[in-house]
Amino acid sequence: MLMFLLMLFPASAFAASAASSPVGENLLWLALILMSARLFAPLAQRIGFPAVLGELLLGVALGNMALLGITFFGTIAHDPIIAFIAELGVIVLLLQIGLETKLKDLVAVGPRAFGVGVIGIIMPFLLGAWVIGPWLMPGKDINAYLFLGATLSATSVGITGRVFRDMGKLDLPAARIVLGAAVIDDVLGLVILAVVSSLVLVGSVSTGVVSLILVKAVLFLGGSIGIGRLIAPWTSQSLARLDAGPSMLFAQVLSTALALSWLAHVMGLAPIIGAFAAGLLFEPVFLHRFDRPTIVREIEPLLPMDSPAGAPSLESGLVGRLRAILAKHTGHQHEHLIEPIGYFFVPVFFVLTGMQVDLQTLADPSVLIIGLGLTAAAVVGKLVAGLAAGREAGGWLVGWGMVPRGEVGLIFAMTGRQLGVINEAMFSIIVIMVILTTLITPPVLSYLLKSRRS
Amino acid sequence: MLMFLLMLFPASAFAASAASSPVGENLLWLALILMSARLFAPLAQRIGFPAVLGELLLGVALGNMALLGITFFGTIAHDPIIAFIAELGVIVLLLQIGLETKLKDLVAVGPRAFGVGVIGIIMPFLLGAWVIGPWLMPGKDINAYLFLGATLSATSVGITGRVFRDMGKLDLPAARIVLGAAVIDDVLGLVILAVVSSLVLVGSVSTGVVSLILVKAVLFLGGSIGIGRLIAPWTSQSLARLDAGPSMLFAQVLSTALALSWLAHVMGLAPIIGAFAAGLLFEPVFLHRFDRPTIVREIEPLLPMDSPAGAPSLESGLVGRLRAILAKHTGHQHEHLIEPIGYFFVPVFFVLTGMQVDLQTLADPSVLIIGLGLTAAAVVGKLVAGLAAGREAGGWLVGWGMVPRGEVGLIFAMTGRQLGVINEAMFSIIVIMVILTTLITPPVLSYLLKSRRS
Repeated sequence: MLMFLLMLFPASAFAASAASSPVGENLLWLALILMSARLFAPLAQRIGFPAVLGELLLGVALGNMALLGITFFGTIAHDPIIAFIAELGVIVLLLQIGLETKLKDLVAVGPRAFGVGVIGIIMPFLLGAWVIGPWLMPGKDINAYLFLGATLSATSVGITGRVFRDMGKLDLPAARIVLGAAVIDDVLGLVILAVVSSLVLVGSVSTGVVSLILVKAVLFLGGSIGIGRLIAPWTSQSLARLDAGPSMLFAQVLSTALALSWLAHVMGLAPIIGAFAAGLLFEPVFLHRFDRPTIVREIEPLLPMDSPAGAPSLESGLVGRLRAILAKHTGHQHEHLIEPIGYFFVPVFFVLTGMQVDLQTLADPSVLIIGLGLTAAAVVGKLVAGLAAGREAGGWLVGWGMVPRGEVGLIFAMTGRQLGVINEAMFSIIVIMVILTTLITPPVLSYLLKSRRS
Repeated sequence: MLMFLLMLFPASAFAASAASSPVGENLLWLALILMSARLFAPLAQRIGFPAVLGELLLGVALGNMALLGITFFGTIAHDPIIAFIAELGVIVLLLQIGLETKLKDLVAVGPRAFGVGVIGIIMPFLLGAWVIGPWLMPGKDINAYLFLGATLSATSVGITGRVFRDMGKLDLPAARIVLGAAVIDDVLGLVILAVVSSLVLVGSVSTGVVSLILVKAVLFLGGSIGIGRLIAPWTSQSLARLDAGPSMLFAQVLSTALALSWLAHVMGLAPIIGAFAAGLLFEPVFLHRFDRPTIVREIEPLLPMDSPAGAPSLESGLVGRLRAILAKHTGHQHEHLIEPIGYFFVPVFFVLTGMQVDLQTLADPSVLIIGLGLTAAAVVGKLVAGLAAGREAGGWLVGWGMVPRGEVGLIFAMTGRQLGVINEAMFSIIVIMVILTTLITPPVLSYLLKSRRS
């Protein structure tokens, strides 16, 4: 029997059950997250912190209201619909970062990004598995140390990308090196995880598994960017012929990002790698067949076809400058169209990230102290990698840019816990490291970027 | 123990389980819906149909692939995350319609919209309960006929709003009458449902229940629009002082829409009534403290402060026209910011609406014939109401605008089935009526609007 739209409006006509509907509540959650993130971000900026820290701390506050006896916000953090909106948020963010990054600039820093990525995986891994692990948590199994090292080797690019983007610094070489290194680290992280999991499970490493991961990653990245850039000019032209309006342009860019995010996910990579790859596909020149923005199309007919030689200089100066402004806005129309989607989704990701922080983890002094030690190692490991980028490329920026472990480090630690290698206490310590590396990075990056400017 | 972001990236690091993750699949579904809706809409328009019919028929095609043995699309229609995105779609659509509707224009047609709404509830109800029901389906319980009448009295405004909006006709009196009548019908529909449910359950009608519904509806509509318009200028000014950028403007408008949708839902009304109310709150003049769009701010300094009396006429003519264009785009900036959100969400609603249509319902000839008869009654009942609006206000347009029963009619029928009043065969007949009224309306409205123009 046909179930026509019933689930779209669960109980919407039934007053009695309305208040308990989770879909209805999610509307309220999104309204609250959207508005309070927008209020917190400028407040954070006024005291000199980046907007993203405001959103993270708002999340921490909301997520720990239960400590004050307010359990009202407890359900948001575990709602699958809000989680999906948050995932769309980080996908849209990496799409935006990809759109604002030129592929050739990324290729130009390729070898350096590769070096930074590799060192940024190896250094924290060695530091965790052979130095800090045995020193701070003596007497554990070697497999536990290996997993600890794997956790330290992770890189989560969302926080760093957001800080660079908010400050308009994506065109710095350091930003491109971090982005390139993050892509490489996502692949190498999978290799590390496969290797240590294999060592725990069967006591040896299968080169087949490792090769498969590498082949799939190379296939995905090479295939999506290579084939994508070959066909993007052609598909753009065909789509624009069908409908040259902004909704088609928008649909092309966003659906490519969603499809490549899914494909990356299927290939075992993080979805955001796919979104970033999608952003790299679309050069403004591919999209020139689409209509210019409405305001541009309204102004253009007012301008003379050619500046006559004898025109007054004020007129030709005004017309010339108008043309330059119109051209700029035409070339980046697709970025402007994606922007409001980011306004909606991106804060949900960072607020939800903050909400997952359980302040109670920080309550046990001994766990906290070991966690601080591990955090120091986590920072040092990535800073060493950053210095390999060279001081003139902004080595400190690159190093700090790779410090946040975010969700990636946690996935590694969870795998270790599922395999029985990492116990509860060790997991708490890792969680502290993940929280601290994630929260301290935005203000440090913001400080480094500001002091560069002056 | 803290569960940091794990659910945001379920299995993203684990190649083995990646392909089976529903979150990953939803990314693909959204990409497919977004892109194919964009491809179908212009194709529908080329053969003279409105874009929304293209999206609905795409949905019908995707939803019935199982008839061809392709079960690939079966899960989309029942996925709660996609359903929520679709609900956001119709919320954003009604917000947009509200933003493009001036409250005073709506109030001006208020009495007429009220009359149309009341007749549009009573006529189909009487027709269904006393004429068509006993004639086409003789020998049923009186309660079954009452429920049938209630189902026929429903109005679903999404389809009609979309057609008027796509054709740029929201400023017609007919559009405003339909919108006003739809709000009134949502309230009266709740009353009818409460009355017939009460008759079935206890054999009598409690005036208390009916009064409560009416009081809550009046409180919500009066309260949200009345209080909202009082405080909107003040909150806009405060928010703009904190951050005058477009992200704050966007957050204010969208989070108001989400919050009022939730509040409407809690009050027992359809969420879209809340979204429409939110759209009515924001007059461009309330929002003048926010920054003008980037392109406007770049062009403005190029224009002379005042046109000197002796300036060349070409120059002052150009400057004057430029100022008019810039002013127009500044006043409607909030509408432009919401637009891309609509590009993303709105097609999901209509494609999913189409997907819920089960073509197998149409396979039984006797059911189909009775369904066609019921559809005729459903159309006639609303057309009579439309004629009450008067021919000069576009009576046919108003009448046809109220024809789609959509999800509202189905919710009524489902309630009747749950109460044991409506059996499976009768439910199938109602479903046919809902499908047909929903699918035939877009081309008819589009035809009426086009023939008006010529």
